Amino acid sequence: MINEKMRALGAKRSVIRELFEYGKKRKAEIGEENVYDFSLGNPSVPAPKEVNEALIKMLSEGDSVALHGYTSAQGDAAVRAAIADYINKTQGESVNADCLYMSVGAAAALTCSLTAVVNEGEEVIVPAPYFPEYKVFIERCGGVIREVACDEDFQLDISAIEAAICEKTAAIIINSPNNPTGAVLCEENIKALAALLKKSEEKYSRTIYLIADEPYRELVYDGAFVPYLTKYYDDTLVCYSYSKSLSLPGERIGYVLVCPRCKDFLETYQAICGAGRALGFVCAPSLLQKLIPYCLGKTAEVEIYDRNRRLLLEKLTEYGYEMVRPEGAFYMFIKSPSGDATEFAERAKKHEILIVPSDDFGCKGYARLSYCVKTEQIERALPAFKALIESYKD
Amino acid sequence: MINEKMRALGAKRSVIRELFEYGKKRKAEIGEENVYDFSLGNPSVPAPKEVNEALIKMLSEGDSVALHGYTSAQGDAAVRAAIADYINKTQGESVNADCLYMSVGAAAALTCSLTAVVNEGEEVIVPAPYFPEYKVFIERCGGVIREVACDEDFQLDISAIEAAICEKTAAIIINSPNNPTGAVLCEENIKALAALLKKSEEKYSRTIYLIADEPYRELVYDGAFVPYLTKYYDDTLVCYSYSKSLSLPGERIGYVLVCPRCKDFLETYQAICGAGRALGFVCAPSLLQKLIPYCLGKTAEVEIYDRNRRLLLEKLTEYGYEMVRPEGAFYMFIKSPSGDATEFAERAKKHEILIVPSDDFGCKGYARLSYCVKTEQIERALPAFKALIESYKD
Repeated sequence: MINEKMRALGAKRSVIRELFEYGKKRKAEIGEENVYDFSLGNPSVPAPKEVNEALIKMLSEGDSVALHGYTSAQGDAAVRAAIADYINKTQGESVNADCLYMSVGAAAALTCSLTAVVNEGEEVIVPAPYFPEYKVFIERCGGVIREVACDEDFQLDISAIEAAICEKTAAIIINSPNNPTGAVLCEENIKALAALLKKSEEKYSRTIYLIADEPYRELVYDGAFVPYLTKYYDDTLVCYSYSKSLSLPGERIGYVLVCPRCKDFLETYQAICGAGRALGFVCAPSLLQKLIPYCLGKTAEVEIYDRNRRLLLEKLTEYGYEMVRPEGAFYMFIKSPSGDATEFAERAKKHEILIVPSDDFGCKGYARLSYCVKTEQIERALPAFKALIESYKD
Repeated sequence: MINEKMRALGAKRSVIRELFEYGKKRKAEIGEENVYDFSLGNPSVPAPKEVNEALIKMLSEGDSVALHGYTSAQGDAAVRAAIADYINKTQGESVNADCLYMSVGAAAALTCSLTAVVNEGEEVIVPAPYFPEYKVFIERCGGVIREVACDEDFQLDISAIEAAICEKTAAIIINSPNNPTGAVLCEENIKALAALLKKSEEKYSRTIYLIADEPYRELVYDGAFVPYLTKYYDDTLVCYSYSKSLSLPGERIGYVLVCPRCKDFLETYQAICGAGRALGFVCAPSLLQKLIPYCLGKTAEVEIYDRNRRLLLEKLTEYGYEMVRPEGAFYMFIKSPSGDATEFAERAKKHEILIVPSDDFGCKGYARLSYCVKTEQIERALPAFKALIESYKD
């Protein structure tokens, strides 16, 4: 009698969760320090001090009724204005408060955006590998996921995307810096995508939305440049979250930005508000919304992630592992020495290393390593990584 | 190209919002003190002091990574255990942490519950008058709303509900204390409903869920008794929110409780988790979840609402208004002297009184007055209420 699709979604743990639970059990058995858990993308660096300072200040000095009261459904107007200013200053954009819809994190930003722009049976293109929840979100609103493999450097394969676009294409989801690969899409690649999308909009006389999932925007290394997509393509929705940049993943605060030059700007913005309403969001958490103006431009200590990344890159490459050099987020995507993702992840387990096989990310032959962990864990894990790859030479 | 249903939902303000915006404009024109705004159900009493004290304590002393990190999707286990204990102590129930799913407020609790138990084309019975978003939530998950009028005391009309139940009935939503009437369903009425639902489950060989929307549970007066529905009917889902009891409506924290004796307990719980995942909730805001164990049993100063209620009841009745004596929430539902809800609310506007016509609540001939306002506003408004009803005698 219950909705069987929903039951299945609730009953089946994701591979990542499954591995995390295995890790918990294993840690209880052999000691936490002997399990090298690289399974979860949960920030390991504390929030910048401004976060708790501002929250305490508001709670001590603010009017309780105003502080904890409903904001308007699209979010507090002053908060949206402050974010718009910040985007304009840092990206040379010209957005305003009315382009922004405050959301309950990036997942909500995505479900509101997809619910707003996808109609029953329409397709959403997703370059693979990709965050597995995209499929859940797309299918829940009646859409069909259309996976398109990236090239071997995890840049978009523009001809493959062109071949996938059809009269039913409602949107494409781009995630850069990328989970699970750590790749950053270069400007040339973005320009080619924008040109293709414009051409395709004309060809099929329809809007094709570019949905940018950007929780990792600030987590970049080696001075990598992350193009701001509204500047390349007008029909863009930016889904942002403060989860990773401010190390607040549990607090659920983010936004959707509708590009002010979007063809059907008002209708699109209204549809996002309508979706938020229908999905039951009411408003993003009030206290967290009001925190944001205090923290614009602040980030958790990204240097710690970079130190982890450099250490792993140096050592794993030295041991003989292969991977595309990650430029952002806190993931690296390691090639399976056997070519088989599950075999690799299972063999890693025998060395007490927990990494996620790539199949669920829509891609074969890799495993994802999350390096948002204590540096000491990496140092302790190095001999195990060495032993793991050497086991393939036997 | 966008989803037209969602655009319409986002474009059309609710009547309540419309009136609220009119009030803002009018206040700017003639001064805030001259507009008697009874339109919104936004708590006017501050959160109990324990709320901000506990938040500040956690922010000052807690580990930032743990405090702001992801909780499990169904919510922090210790928080759920504390809530379960509290329910058991106060209601004589025997629930545990695994019966609870922490939600982003009551609206999310409802959308997760409905998405979990309603299949395309199935019906959900809603006794009228009712909170208008129920219709939006039911239709978004493919269900059909089936309105059934309450009796003249706003108790459930059991024979009318019996006539509405059919093989397609998936659920019934009960909201007591009620928005918009302030009525509390009495135990006898609940017992009769439970008996009918049991009989109907047998007759149609299907589960019919009783969804209890209970954000106003603690806001009751004159010692009114609010039956705890799991004790009368096993296939019950309780959707609770701390918005009103703790005066935190913007913070979005609540839960779904699945009755442990529910026929398909595990499947139902899993479907709710799956729905939360598919709708993009990830987890309820972490800091707010962790606040709850500090505040169990605490409420904002309900006495202030009661004082407002008594003052209005006494004076409005004296002037000649008719209404059913409200026993809970912070609403009263006043009969239109002309019998026409819109005419009444429009005429009230001329006296600078803002009350919501009842049509959008699925009921003709009334207006809703929200008395979650400063007592002084009521005192200032009394001559206007007198003049308003006297205008009908001309």
